[in-house]
Amino acid sequence: MSAWVLPDHIADVLPSEARHIEELRRQLLDTARGYGYELVMPPLIEHLESLLSGTGEALDLQTFKLVDQLSGRSMGLRADTTPQVARIDAHLLNRQGVARLCYCGPVLHARPDGPNATREPLQFGAELYGHAGREADLEALELALAALRAAGVRDALVDLGDVRIVHALLAGVAAPRDTLERVHAALAAKDASTLAVLTRDFPPASRDALHALLALYGDVRVLDEAEEAFAAFPEALSALAGLRWLAGQLAELGGVRVSFDLADLQGYAYYSGARFAIYADGANDSLARGGRYDEVGAVFGRNRPAVGFSLDVRSLVAVVPRPPLRAAIRAPWSDSDAGLRGAIAALRAAGETVVCALPGHESEIDEFHCDRALLCTGGRWEVKAI
Amino acid sequence: MSAWVLPDHIADVLPSEARHIEELRRQLLDTARGYGYELVMPPLIEHLESLLSGTGEALDLQTFKLVDQLSGRSMGLRADTTPQVARIDAHLLNRQGVARLCYCGPVLHARPDGPNATREPLQFGAELYGHAGREADLEALELALAALRAAGVRDALVDLGDVRIVHALLAGVAAPRDTLERVHAALAAKDASTLAVLTRDFPPASRDALHALLALYGDVRVLDEAEEAFAAFPEALSALAGLRWLAGQLAELGGVRVSFDLADLQGYAYYSGARFAIYADGANDSLARGGRYDEVGAVFGRNRPAVGFSLDVRSLVAVVPRPPLRAAIRAPWSDSDAGLRGAIAALRAAGETVVCALPGHESEIDEFHCDRALLCTGGRWEVKAI
Repeated sequence: MSAWVLPDHIADVLPSEARHIEELRRQLLDTARGYGYELVMPPLIEHLESLLSGTGEALDLQTFKLVDQLSGRSMGLRADTTPQVARIDAHLLNRQGVARLCYCGPVLHARPDGPNATREPLQFGAELYGHAGREADLEALELALAALRAAGVRDALVDLGDVRIVHALLAGVAAPRDTLERVHAALAAKDASTLAVLTRDFPPASRDALHALLALYGDVRVLDEAEEAFAAFPEALSALAGLRWLAGQLAELGGVRVSFDLADLQGYAYYSGARFAIYADGANDSLARGGRYDEVGAVFGRNRPAVGFSLDVRSLVAVVPRPPLRAAIRAPWSDSDAGLRGAIAALRAAGETVVCALPGHESEIDEFHCDRALLCTGGRWEVKAI
Repeated sequence: MSAWVLPDHIADVLPSEARHIEELRRQLLDTARGYGYELVMPPLIEHLESLLSGTGEALDLQTFKLVDQLSGRSMGLRADTTPQVARIDAHLLNRQGVARLCYCGPVLHARPDGPNATREPLQFGAELYGHAGREADLEALELALAALRAAGVRDALVDLGDVRIVHALLAGVAAPRDTLERVHAALAAKDASTLAVLTRDFPPASRDALHALLALYGDVRVLDEAEEAFAAFPEALSALAGLRWLAGQLAELGGVRVSFDLADLQGYAYYSGARFAIYADGANDSLARGGRYDEVGAVFGRNRPAVGFSLDVRSLVAVVPRPPLRAAIRAPWSDSDAGLRGAIAALRAAGETVVCALPGHESEIDEFHCDRALLCTGGRWEVKAI
């Protein structure tokens, strides 16, 4: 096989896309900094039990394994940065008050998420620790929207849900764990007939409420219907009130449409409260996902409230307009003209790209888009349009 | 073992260092862009034979191996980005003229380079393909110096050498490959007695010249001595003339001291011409290394001239002064005051960091350094010093 063949779902990023990714990366990190989120950089490799403790089977399957020849122990390539940042909050920073952290770096997936998915997403995310209130939920959601807006996403659609609704409906049900997991799967697939079979022996109130859940997706009227359907479940009503408040806050922010999908349990093993997904107009896959996962730091010895989100910069780059390339200035090469060298240095210091035509290659500079040239007229070096 | 224990030579990067690394990263990439170097992002994992073809045993030992469950084939985590960028130039871009490429991303080392070395350096580098002349060597060196200067390195020392000198001295020697490698090692270690044993049966001219090489390190006078000692080796004289020209050009740039070490063969399997290492004042380890490696693209089907350099951003961060943190603005939280929200949004849009004190946590915001507060006076929101 040829030396230049890459593994499936692995690709090089070539200049024009790489430039766009780098610009988005900076915009996302600068947005998070504007909200007071401090950057951290967890490592790409860790002991397997650190990466996978308490994270569930899905992440295990997604994680590349390798052996540390220094210790003989099993290590993993991180497939998700969220548990690592929780470890940093819990163990290294160990702050008493609120901690706001963000990150941006590659993660690796042993299996691709879909037929066109990369196995090397560039994950950006932000996490807020130490605040259990809905105000923190709102801040995470607001930051996610601000980050996407900075990246060029217009007309975002926010889809809201809360895993506590399903938990409340199932709270009085004495069913084996396996059955409950199949109920979750049937809800996620909106599969009414399977759900009917699985819930046949459930208490009638729970059974009816779970069936009602299947139809509870759409605009804000869903909340009214849900309040009626779940009147017997106070925990569900409390979660619904939280969603109504969040939606009201988003409406005040403006420029955002909101929908609800109360049966959507994607990541249910992970989230412990409100969850959100943000879609760009016309896109099928969500651009960002987040919510509350208060249990995330428990395995690192500190179980405190946590809410956050993450997104893949490489997916984002495909759906936002690419900013135009700032054209460069072509300059001649000289090893003796101090005036030319000074002029080039001054242009570069001012943020311009100056490409020197190396001797023997004066005519081939067209690989790089130059719209101006540095020319000597009357003993002075000046930039002229080409 | 506790879930928060990291593998040896692997560490988290916490906020104040992470912020500095991110700033350096941008300065380095912006400097390269100013010279017309286009950013590329090769993948972290590749088939092992792609990563290791033609790169030598040292890189093999440094490379983490893992198995691709999609294909069953062996993959490696990149330990060096240079061969990947050569692959991109040779196979993907396939330009006829000069190509200038740069990159910045993590690499992973199965074994640390030293007792305090990280196994996850953040490698920044730049490569110029398609130009065999010394002008390209100078551009790579000049860019490396400009990048280090942008990062805050003062009083750089450039150490120059050229592997063609040793090659020229050994050209007439019929010795087994193994002996030649031990000669290289003895030269690198400046081990005169071993060198004497190894070269006992070499032609006298080569033997004397190799011995002379051991003492040829220091300032520019080294070149005079070398010209005398290697008068019988025209290829060596030509390499010396190249070094003299490079040193003269650096002197014209100013602000840089130059030294020579003609016996230094670090990376000799890699380089094919002039090589350089850049040191900060008082540091033992080089901050950046580079030079000409014309063979690097051959294994990808395109053997064309190449010159470049790389450096570890995480080592660099340890030797340059950390820029001061720009302090943030503390703001109250409200879900109903549109004036407050507008004031916060405007400050963030202007590049300020505004940290909202979430309800219940108003007094604990001191985790983040805030030197100003957003306060309401007479119905208007204003920033006041704390």
